[in-house]
Amino acid sequence: MSKSWGNRLAWLPKLNRPVPEGMNNPLEIAAFEAETYFQSGNSGKSVFFELYPAMKEAYAIRKDGDGYVISGGQTGVLYGVYTLIRGIEAGETLPEGTQKPYYPLRMINCWDNMDGTVERGYAGRSIWFENGRFDYDPARIRQMGRMLASVGINVLCINNVNVHQPAQHLLDTLLPEVEEFAAILRPFGVRLMLSVDFSMPLQNGLSTADPEDVQVQDWWKAQAQKIWKCVPDLAGFLVKADSEHRPGPNAYNRTHAQGANMLARAIKPFGGVLVWRAFVYNCLQDWRDTQTDRPRAAYDLYQPLDGCFDENVVLQVKYGPFDFQVREPVSPLLYAMPKTPLALEFQLAQEYTGHQIDLFAMPPLWREVLDQMGKEKVCAVAAVSNLGRDGNWFGHPFAALNLFAFGLYGWNPDADPQKVIAAWVRNTYTLPASQQDTLASVLLGSRKTYEKYTAPLGLCWMVRPESHYGPSPYGYEFQAWGTYNRADCRGVGIDRTEKGTGYACQYPKEWAEVFASPQACPDELLLFFHRLPYSFRMKDGRTLIQRIYDDHFEGCREAENMQEALKTLSLPEPDREEALQRMDQQVQNAREWRDVINTFFRRFSGIEDEKGRKIYD
Amino acid sequence: MSKSWGNRLAWLPKLNRPVPEGMNNPLEIAAFEAETYFQSGNSGKSVFFELYPAMKEAYAIRKDGDGYVISGGQTGVLYGVYTLIRGIEAGETLPEGTQKPYYPLRMINCWDNMDGTVERGYAGRSIWFENGRFDYDPARIRQMGRMLASVGINVLCINNVNVHQPAQHLLDTLLPEVEEFAAILRPFGVRLMLSVDFSMPLQNGLSTADPEDVQVQDWWKAQAQKIWKCVPDLAGFLVKADSEHRPGPNAYNRTHAQGANMLARAIKPFGGVLVWRAFVYNCLQDWRDTQTDRPRAAYDLYQPLDGCFDENVVLQVKYGPFDFQVREPVSPLLYAMPKTPLALEFQLAQEYTGHQIDLFAMPPLWREVLDQMGKEKVCAVAAVSNLGRDGNWFGHPFAALNLFAFGLYGWNPDADPQKVIAAWVRNTYTLPASQQDTLASVLLGSRKTYEKYTAPLGLCWMVRPESHYGPSPYGYEFQAWGTYNRADCRGVGIDRTEKGTGYACQYPKEWAEVFASPQACPDELLLFFHRLPYSFRMKDGRTLIQRIYDDHFEGCREAENMQEALKTLSLPEPDREEALQRMDQQVQNAREWRDVINTFFRRFSGIEDEKGRKIYD
Repeated sequence: MSKSWGNRLAWLPKLNRPVPEGMNNPLEIAAFEAETYFQSGNSGKSVFFELYPAMKEAYAIRKDGDGYVISGGQTGVLYGVYTLIRGIEAGETLPEGTQKPYYPLRMINCWDNMDGTVERGYAGRSIWFENGRFDYDPARIRQMGRMLASVGINVLCINNVNVHQPAQHLLDTLLPEVEEFAAILRPFGVRLMLSVDFSMPLQNGLSTADPEDVQVQDWWKAQAQKIWKCVPDLAGFLVKADSEHRPGPNAYNRTHAQGANMLARAIKPFGGVLVWRAFVYNCLQDWRDTQTDRPRAAYDLYQPLDGCFDENVVLQVKYGPFDFQVREPVSPLLYAMPKTPLALEFQLAQEYTGHQIDLFAMPPLWREVLDQMGKEKVCAVAAVSNLGRDGNWFGHPFAALNLFAFGLYGWNPDADPQKVIAAWVRNTYTLPASQQDTLASVLLGSRKTYEKYTAPLGLCWMVRPESHYGPSPYGYEFQAWGTYNRADCRGVGIDRTEKGTGYACQYPKEWAEVFASPQACPDELLLFFHRLPYSFRMKDGRTLIQRIYDDHFEGCREAENMQEALKTLSLPEPDREEALQRMDQQVQNAREWRDVINTFFRRFSGIEDEKGRKIYD
Repeated sequence: MSKSWGNRLAWLPKLNRPVPEGMNNPLEIAAFEAETYFQSGNSGKSVFFELYPAMKEAYAIRKDGDGYVISGGQTGVLYGVYTLIRGIEAGETLPEGTQKPYYPLRMINCWDNMDGTVERGYAGRSIWFENGRFDYDPARIRQMGRMLASVGINVLCINNVNVHQPAQHLLDTLLPEVEEFAAILRPFGVRLMLSVDFSMPLQNGLSTADPEDVQVQDWWKAQAQKIWKCVPDLAGFLVKADSEHRPGPNAYNRTHAQGANMLARAIKPFGGVLVWRAFVYNCLQDWRDTQTDRPRAAYDLYQPLDGCFDENVVLQVKYGPFDFQVREPVSPLLYAMPKTPLALEFQLAQEYTGHQIDLFAMPPLWREVLDQMGKEKVCAVAAVSNLGRDGNWFGHPFAALNLFAFGLYGWNPDADPQKVIAAWVRNTYTLPASQQDTLASVLLGSRKTYEKYTAPLGLCWMVRPESHYGPSPYGYEFQAWGTYNRADCRGVGIDRTEKGTGYACQYPKEWAEVFASPQACPDELLLFFHRLPYSFRMKDGRTLIQRIYDDHFEGCREAENMQEALKTLSLPEPDREEALQRMDQQVQNAREWRDVINTFFRRFSGIEDEKGRKIYD
């Protein structure tokens, strides 16, 4: 077992005593946290707890003389104490009245493989798997539970949605170890979830995994019984089916509703939720085929199934129709399933957004998505984890912000990105106020900057195909992934309006009209929806090509400014060194992106930069 | 240990008894082979052997009544019997007089890692390594020895030139196992060679690997003593230094001559040869830098060192200045080192030439290289192995041709590709003569066809960067490998003449003049040496862009014709099924290449095909 983790405390620096082994319920931990915080930080204040089990995750905080009273449910009191600490650290006024989470399910999906690797992980190896088995330091798991609870996350799916052997044994021979792991996180209000291989019956003596086959149904029912007997509060299963070569109901000519419902019925008696991912598309597309359009896929497949899913199925939909790109329109599926419980899926792991080297604070992106979508469209939120075995948990110490913020958005989807970022900064670092503002401002602008120097105006997929890092504007162009920009000497982009692939027609009328018109479409999404000549005039009068050049020069300049700003901060070590080293890399990356993308478009268009800046041949 | 190999006999189908364990010298094996062949195939003929040890590898064959007499050296008699069998099978007249190899060193370089993988291997896993140790079936190694001896190959380097742990232990703790392995191949006239990590002293308690450091020199001398004591006929060491992040003398500001000579002196007392690879270039190039030109690298580094190498150093030079591309000019270094023993390096493993799926018979390529270079420029030939654990040894049963032919070219660099290919066909398959001709003709044209449908006119590097398979015309364009085509809306290619990077000036005058002129330069290399507009007129009057389109349509059509031709052959199973399955894949590949490359250039140039054939948008 690796002990190489550095025991770093992320946004909880004042909770500087580990939660001891043997604390078996949230109230006990809540009392411990209050004592730790108020004795160390704001000495002498007392916190009293009133337990009302029916309140469950809810809580209320009131001042009581010099101290506080937190009333709440079993987990609520724990959430209450963390909210209190967060609020004091951030200098916020205490929330008034009873607080409860807007989304009952607030899930982290870990793409951890049992060999210890983490798919698209940028913070080191798995914290709990190695060499095909569980292998962890219980103290570190408790510390992780504390971090998750401190921002109100209540479900942790511990294995990759791409279920590689031997992870299927988490559902049978490894169940006792799953329960041991679950027991460590239970007092923090965190329940486990398991990713499941749809074809598992085939690996267990059955000749089919057909969801309409009675033997298959019975097998899953019996299996569920064994599983929940061992882990009684397991939250449910997460399934990636018929997607990127994973098995699924299509093999038996069954719909995804039939597939999901079969599993849902097996786990329903135990209160399990069946989370079914809607990330399904043709990953063997022919680039010559200009009619098949990957962003259409999820809507085309699932919209006709609205109303066909059992009530304990949750359809988990990525925020955009592609795959966690820097800029995508909100997935049209999110508007189209009023009768189906939906989860909105984000990705904290910075797969396409800088690998936890480049800064990319996500709250502004989420704010836009939630505003465009309407928070009430979904009943749950999920996010792909950015955690790993690195000493600072996240690869980049600032990447912690995204996990922190995700938890807060699960409770309050109306949150203001600026305030959430400020709260993270103030909880994490004790700095002069002006430095806190500087850091918060760098983070707040980081997504826009990253967007400017990478793929322009919603084009997406200009990264290197294997690593998903660094510029390769034509790297995906002739591949089978359905991810093309179709740049040529005349123009760039794909017409996704009615005259093209028709993707824009999947939206409700008000959005469909906006997206259909190059004049109305937001600049940021222009090349997502339209194929345009380089001479196209943007709203501000610039040509499309000039806008591309300008954005790339600006984005790079902004990255350089971020670097200058970070250098002025008196961050504690090793955070300072880690952040500055990665910032160096980011500035190099930004220059590379700027030059590659500008050169790429100049090579096609033959058009010079109006301002005469250097574009390489 | 895997027993999954199929005991297939490649070009030796009539030697259908395994060479028994315990035959300890070539003469014994020669007698066994003669008996096997003549009793089974051409019953009743007798072969007598006359051993003249001083003849070593040489031999002479004469008819003697109904039978034959083979006189020769220790290994010569074995080579003689194989030549006799090959000649009878191919219907050739027997060679007259004493035969001896033109190149004394005829080496196969295996890129086998001790974890069982083979770098750039397309015929399955390693035949002798697995799980960090030797793990093989001795019968299979004997069969491989027989194959190597049957075409006169006398050195086998058994581990990857990129020496990954624990392969450095082949030089210390694993020496007894190396000797055990060597002993199996010794009776076949095959000596082992080992790839060596230049930094090995650092892993053994020394604080430096500086070749001018006496302690380092002494360490290597002592090590050599131990090694040759254990494996007395070890052929020598193979070293990849200061190349693609391998350690080397540069770290100590020493020249490659200093590095190589230090090792050469350590192994000289034991008759060892130090093979030093000249494949050294800047693999962290900036694509913006148009002056640094990777093909220049080896000449720039080594030419000034001519005359500085010890006599038991052999500088191993790839045939082209890049890296085994489909079409390259001969490396200028091969003309520039008259005082240095050189080895010419080929690659049987079809890294950039179809992964042993697409047909690519190499003799025509080698014929061109040897003719352009002059066979006397080198004293040795080496080839990267295409062998693996697959049942048929080569992935594709026809890929066997390349190993077969390489052996023959090592003996006779004047060989005619057509005759070599015909000999392989006739030795491998008993088919009606017309079918033999059909197969030989398909193979003879396969390189030209592959060239036509892949990268045009010497451009190189249009493959996918990680796999080196399938088209990605801009995949390498902005990377650090120094491998650019710089296509834009005006033209394509790099000016490597005096006015450009100056690479063409590295050639002797007669070649430099040819390459310097777009009018004189061979069409196949036009875009290797020149940057030209799409409207450039080729020698035959076509425009450059039209020639690109034509070649790609023709190449694809030729692949389809090859497929039709193969279908007519009554090949034995499983060869037939394997060959046809792979041919299906090749035809798909050819279509993909045709369409991607044509579309790529039409997107840039905006120019239509004159013949109105389909080029996708």
